Amino acid sequence: MSQHPLAKFLDAVPDFPKPGILFSDISPLLKDHFVATIDAMSELFSEQEWSEIDCLAGIESRGFIFASALAYKHNKGFIKVRKPGKLPNVAASIEYGLEYGSDKLEMQKGDGRKVVLFDDLIATGGSMGAAAQLCEKVGYDVIGMACLIDLASLNSFSYKDMTVRSVIQFED
Amino acid sequence: MSQHPLAKFLDAVPDFPKPGILFSDISPLLKDHFVATIDAMSELFSEQEWSEIDCLAGIESRGFIFASALAYKHNKGFIKVRKPGKLPNVAASIEYGLEYGSDKLEMQKGDGRKVVLFDDLIATGGSMGAAAQLCEKVGYDVIGMACLIDLASLNSFSYKDMTVRSVIQFED
Repeated sequence: MSQHPLAKFLDAVPDFPKPGILFSDISPLLKDHFVATIDAMSELFSEQEWSEIDCLAGIESRGFIFASALAYKHNKGFIKVRKPGKLPNVAASIEYGLEYGSDKLEMQKGDGRKVVLFDDLIATGGSMGAAAQLCEKVGYDVIGMACLIDLASLNSFSYKDMTVRSVIQFED
Repeated sequence: MSQHPLAKFLDAVPDFPKPGILFSDISPLLKDHFVATIDAMSELFSEQEWSEIDCLAGIESRGFIFASALAYKHNKGFIKVRKPGKLPNVAASIEYGLEYGSDKLEMQKGDGRKVVLFDDLIATGGSMGAAAQLCEKVGYDVIGMACLIDLASLNSFSYKDMTVRSVIQFED
């Protein structure tokens, strides 16, 4: 599989955050190739698809980076999917399993608008899947999911017939 | 003092996150007036000033939202100022006092580039001041600081003769 040219600016950091994990650090990419990175994510959706999207939802906290720049580029609303205790007027929350333990996401009330979810990276799809369920629980219509890096492209996560679109794919 | 027209889209939430605190929720503003909000922050700096900036640094996590969209708009690099344990290859960290207890920020190594710091809100300036010091400690040149909301505009925070620029000001 040929790799996207932006992949070479990722910094592979061994044993972070835990021994045995090879962490893909997006910092060099964001510092030196930010506009190219956002434009590459933008191309994951056609002009027709962009015209149907109302809001971009970013998953705290690296998802905020992509959802925000793309919301600006395409003149869309920005919605936060947050970790517990950060948002007032939470309408619903969702707990999801991690390798060890669990995590939780919270959102405010939705209003039927069409939303695409953004995160930096997808591995098992735990947080993306939880965020998609939560969006629908609070009253948004999830019409897409995207991230910069898919760590398990041979076994990609999907939700209700939608796959997660990504710029850079690694095979697990 | 006449208030910026975007101020009316903030949601004032009493007793969040603690009793006695009136929280300015930016969620409705980001959902319904995102481009106008980013453009208003963009106008805090002149075209000449924008041309001198190399990178925008966002303070985790709401600062990411503003630094990211503005970095895209002005074709700049994006840098993360993160909470502890999130970044690999941390070059330096800084601890700073909160009303109760303390918090910590971390960054990777800098390279002399000219940086403007962004956050959503400034009150005492604790996290903005710590982030500015940290930027210089890791090797960036801080040439500006900005946020959406200044909660203490009569007693504005400054750092090395630079004041924090803001779109919406409240008098404390």
